[in-house]
Amino acid sequence: MKMHALDVRVRYADTDKMGMMYYANHFAYFEAGRIEYLRALGVVYRDLEERGIFFPVAEASCRYMAPARYDDELQVLTWVERLRPTRIDFGNLVIRKADGAHLARGHVLLACLDKDGKPMRMPKEVVDRVEVWEGPPESA
Amino acid sequence: MKMHALDVRVRYADTDKMGMMYYANHFAYFEAGRIEYLRALGVVYRDLEERGIFFPVAEASCRYMAPARYDDELQVLTWVERLRPTRIDFGNLVIRKADGAHLARGHVLLACLDKDGKPMRMPKEVVDRVEVWEGPPESA
Amino acid sequence: MKMHALDVRVRYADTDKMGMMYYANHFAYFEAGRIEYLRALGVVYRDLEERGIFFPVAEASCRYMAPARYDDELQVLTWVERLRPTRIDFGNLVIRKADGAHLARGHVLLACLDKDGKPMRMPKEVVDRVEVWEGPPESA
Amino acid sequence: MKMHALDVRVRYADTDKMGMMYYANHFAYFEAGRIEYLRALGVVYRDLEERGIFFPVAEASCRYMAPARYDDELQVLTWVERLRPTRIDFGNLVIRKADGAHLARGHVLLACLDKDGKPMRMPKEVVDRVEVWEGPPESA
Repeated sequence: MKMHALDVRVRYADTDKMGMMYYANHFAYFEAGRIEYLRALGVVYRDLEERGIFFPVAEASCRYMAPARYDDELQVLTWVERLRPTRIDFGNLVIRKADGAHLARGHVLLACLDKDGKPMRMPKEVVDRVEVWEGPPESA
Repeated sequence: MKMHALDVRVRYADTDKMGMMYYANHFAYFEAGRIEYLRALGVVYRDLEERGIFFPVAEASCRYMAPARYDDELQVLTWVERLRPTRIDFGNLVIRKADGAHLARGHVLLACLDKDGKPMRMPKEVVDRVEVWEGPPESA
Repeated sequence: MKMHALDVRVRYADTDKMGMMYYANHFAYFEAGRIEYLRALGVVYRDLEERGIFFPVAEASCRYMAPARYDDELQVLTWVERLRPTRIDFGNLVIRKADGAHLARGHVLLACLDKDGKPMRMPKEVVDRVEVWEGPPESA
Repeated sequence: MKMHALDVRVRYADTDKMGMMYYANHFAYFEAGRIEYLRALGVVYRDLEERGIFFPVAEASCRYMAPARYDDELQVLTWVERLRPTRIDFGNLVIRKADGAHLARGHVLLACLDKDGKPMRMPKEVVDRVEVWEGPPESA
């Protein structure tokens, strides 16, 4: 699996005074995207935490190309751009389903830490199952 | 101390497509209000949790009289309406500082639980220091 | 249609330090629930706003019976408890799908306002299509 | 003024299951920081919007060095890294007041748009009053 697609709809709660999704809320959608990406590989992040494995965010970025408006149906595309022994780089692209327009493109780097906050090796099932991919092309 | 007043300003993050504070966000302001109420009595809620005492919300309600708009300066008034052995009822009133208009009035009931989720007696310092009050009159 | 059921999953973004859904976030789920209830009746709230009809929240309340935990699959049940010329009362019940436990029960009263903020009559399609219901029984 | 400092405290609403501030919420703090930076220069962003000038976010990024925990007192430092005819680059640094530790460093690029969404020149008062600065050194 190179990429996972999650369908979401922009809620009123997510909008701001400009009538579009508040910029920070894209990052919550990215989170939902990567959790479902992992679930599609058979990796349930909640279970990892119960085994004492945590993936806190070390870096996050997003480029906003066009607004996601209230009630828009979106697709959050998620893939893994890079996999290192104690880190995983996710890529995200938010697409408006009505016309396929690219709305936002993001990147989130997660560290793999044990319960004491020390870096640890990525779990074997993540390493074995993830297919690294550079992501869809930049232009819409 | 009958009542505590916390100054806040409506952020873009808190607004929605109507240009006003999204209704659910008032409850986060109520939380800030009651934490500062307790702090003003010398009770730091974070410390209570470290001692294994938790105050989860059992009931919450709010009546919205007028919109809180972007960048408005607000006062979140907080008081304790009732104190029972294992419960505490907070009242809240959100006021627009510019003209004193009453924007929202809320009520939040917290349970007092131990780390296993069992009801326990309110900590002595809360019981000793809280002054129960019926709250400011309803009309603006 | 007496009731609508929306499936949601608790995101990390929705959790708090207690590991459960932050109490205010239930109200965003209620919003999603009532928007989808209306859509199931053929009423798209976004279109109402474009016609100058707004449903701001006048009152909201919630009783929390048990925590919604991270990654839990939930059902947000939504129904209309009462319909008056310029107001609509929604009821909500949040259920944990794994065992059917009742986690939270809510009530949200919406006013029907025109673009100048004046009360106006509920749109005919809402009045015609809504089936008022008292909601599911209280006990799980 | 090279830099503005805003005091904030981490609310329960901002935390997640790991007991720290959810990563996306830093961006709401950055927003508060840049609004207060502008206000300190005599520029009220709300007034700009009323004149038909909008500053939507075009890019945002953050590097997380250490967790911001519940009830921590933070300082959100804000400065302007670059100023172009139709764009402004803000820098942010979140510091824990107790010990001065650097928790997160961010960058947000805003476009200047008119009410039709077309790029327009930055308002004169912003250009005249902003002092571009590279920001505090990277290491704590």
